[in-house]
Amino acid sequence: MSGYVRALAGQARAAALVLAGTDAATRRRLIEGMAARLEHDRDAILAANAEDIARGRGAGLGSALLDRLMLDAARLKGIADALRDVAAQPDPLGQVTRREVRPNGVVVERQRVPLGLIAMIYEARPNVTADAAALCLKAGNAVLLRGGSEARASNAAIAASLHAALRAEGLPEAAVSLVADPAREHVLELLQLTDLVDLAIPRGGESLIRFVAEHARVPVIKHYKGVCHLYVDRAADMDKALGLLLDGKVSRPGVCNALETLLVHRDIAQAFLPSALAALKARGVEVRGCERTQALGPGVLPAADADYAAEFLDLVIAVRVVDRLEDALAHIACYGSDHTEVIVTDDPHAAEAFVRGTRSSAVMVNASSRFNDGGQLGLGAEIGISTTRLHAYGPMGAESLTIERFVVRGEGQVRHPESSLPPAGG
Amino acid sequence: MSGYVRALAGQARAAALVLAGTDAATRRRLIEGMAARLEHDRDAILAANAEDIARGRGAGLGSALLDRLMLDAARLKGIADALRDVAAQPDPLGQVTRREVRPNGVVVERQRVPLGLIAMIYEARPNVTADAAALCLKAGNAVLLRGGSEARASNAAIAASLHAALRAEGLPEAAVSLVADPAREHVLELLQLTDLVDLAIPRGGESLIRFVAEHARVPVIKHYKGVCHLYVDRAADMDKALGLLLDGKVSRPGVCNALETLLVHRDIAQAFLPSALAALKARGVEVRGCERTQALGPGVLPAADADYAAEFLDLVIAVRVVDRLEDALAHIACYGSDHTEVIVTDDPHAAEAFVRGTRSSAVMVNASSRFNDGGQLGLGAEIGISTTRLHAYGPMGAESLTIERFVVRGEGQVRHPESSLPPAGG
Repeated sequence: MSGYVRALAGQARAAALVLAGTDAATRRRLIEGMAARLEHDRDAILAANAEDIARGRGAGLGSALLDRLMLDAARLKGIADALRDVAAQPDPLGQVTRREVRPNGVVVERQRVPLGLIAMIYEARPNVTADAAALCLKAGNAVLLRGGSEARASNAAIAASLHAALRAEGLPEAAVSLVADPAREHVLELLQLTDLVDLAIPRGGESLIRFVAEHARVPVIKHYKGVCHLYVDRAADMDKALGLLLDGKVSRPGVCNALETLLVHRDIAQAFLPSALAALKARGVEVRGCERTQALGPGVLPAADADYAAEFLDLVIAVRVVDRLEDALAHIACYGSDHTEVIVTDDPHAAEAFVRGTRSSAVMVNASSRFNDGGQLGLGAEIGISTTRLHAYGPMGAESLTIERFVVRGEGQVRHPESSLPPAGG
Repeated sequence: MSGYVRALAGQARAAALVLAGTDAATRRRLIEGMAARLEHDRDAILAANAEDIARGRGAGLGSALLDRLMLDAARLKGIADALRDVAAQPDPLGQVTRREVRPNGVVVERQRVPLGLIAMIYEARPNVTADAAALCLKAGNAVLLRGGSEARASNAAIAASLHAALRAEGLPEAAVSLVADPAREHVLELLQLTDLVDLAIPRGGESLIRFVAEHARVPVIKHYKGVCHLYVDRAADMDKALGLLLDGKVSRPGVCNALETLLVHRDIAQAFLPSALAALKARGVEVRGCERTQALGPGVLPAADADYAAEFLDLVIAVRVVDRLEDALAHIACYGSDHTEVIVTDDPHAAEAFVRGTRSSAVMVNASSRFNDGGQLGLGAEIGISTTRLHAYGPMGAESLTIERFVVRGEGQVRHPESSLPPAGG
């Protein structure tokens, strides 16, 4: 342990106390100032990004990764606009969420306070540097950012703009602290700092998330893969089912709320699957199905067990015909990832059985899996979608970066008044 | 890894799905049935407890530990009554906590659901076996209980009663699963089961909690020590201050919400401390103080740095005179344990500065630290007091054993309607 990260986290933790004391107007102005500063510093940020891109090309990064890494004026404006959206969100802090007067007269309030210091560990996209910082600051937290080394110049340039905005408000720069040295040992050190880091959020590929989850002593909220299911019930409206299938699988196959598996009730399989499989095929989707599925469409490949557990993130889908709704639930319990499940049905009993029988972060009844997203569900920007069944489950907005604590106000009430009596013999 | 604990957890996880599907009336009846069954099985439970006590005596357990281990008819009735209180609490599940209709017409609901499978790892007190099971079941969870080996006969007898109550409701016994084999390797194995265990709650001494926190891959909510502070502001009412000091330090020194450190503003030190120190001394409290404290009371021992970090759990208190409220806050930030802090003041500005400047789970203004307790704060029974700043902070009742997820209801809405259009050339 070098102590480098501990020193950084210590400063960030001290800054968190300052942030926690700010009011809503200050935090709003701060984040608007960050957006303006990013636009003001555009040339410097794009130059730094060009440096990352050139180094990435030299290192042989693939085109998908280079595209995620790349910034241009339009993308930078998108980042600034996203920050303005965060600034405009309702303030998540300070509200008294509950209030009760106890029989002894003390007033018990629950109050939202910041988590403290949040560590974000993420990969290529430099926009996360700005997004995550804005959401953490909106909720009065400090943030320790450890981005991928491939984006280090971009991240440093973005952080410099954010620091300028912090300075303009008289707030400590350390509220947004960047782990500039990309050595992996620093991530390891960071994940051990239980006295300084209140929460670590890994965001990126499955291997990054597993690395963080395996090595962390600090609390972690994970955003694992989405193996999302669409179940077409016997009582489904087939037009809706087809629309939801195509939206879920085709509209953006590389995201975590895209569909990976289609489950079809046997009573509707013959009516639904032939046209559904043809529609998938026409859009270039490779289908891997059970034997009953294979019998209903040409060109369906046999599905292996691993296909039902896979997050393809591509134009591939696994399909299985099930005998009963309960079998669909059992399949999801076995292969699912607690992310998003959809039922298509006009039978309210089937809908309720499905909602009750799944434990995922979002259950959709006749609505697309693609709605599992902070913006779509009305939370504003999100810092990720939690599949950890603790603290937050599903999309996490600024409110998820707070915690309720107790504030008790009295007039000297004690629990055992006899403690104040003179002692025996006194 | 023996696989013994994995098999046990797998059964408990399956039972959790059954529990999640029960209604409020069933869970209430179940917990009332558990209370009745414990009383019905009294002789068997007390006989098992006598066995533990005899074995503990033979092994040389101290009298405090033996007292915590010991059950008699009155204590067993207390356990049953506590279960009836849990049964009577409002049901924490199924409510729709928020509901919003989005512009596209989909209805977004937030719904409280159980966490799933909770592992309790605890020490001597056999009442935890019943309490923890009841709270977990109230919130629709299954529980995996690993008590201390010194209480193994008592825990097994209590679990047998709980199983009888589960059977009477047609529910799986595995909803309350006991790790009967006391080998520590089973705890280690349990703490790695990220695919089965949703939350681990250690309850007991600091070394147990550290062991769990260090080895867990599953999420943990810790209930560490309470180094609770009383700050007597310059604007304090001295009678209230003395009452709060004695209630906090003397009424039950062995609990986590007892006071360990007294901080006194220098402007009131000369007026307050001599009588306060005398009152403490008269009740047998050993005082370890700073130089200014030593000058104000006879027999004050010098306080070492370690005394300010100590959870004495005994009739010992550390005292320091501070120059300003900010110094009290800095002291608490340095030595505190995020548990409970108290300010005594008639100055509302000082009170708010103190509330804002501390990050502990409970902040008391002119009220005793001893109120940081689920029953006192209106939550009913508690499974512990969280000092983890995530998910729950402060006393945890049944509601803290649930999580909100998203249920979205639509009529076929999709995010990208163009996905359904015939493909180009189709």
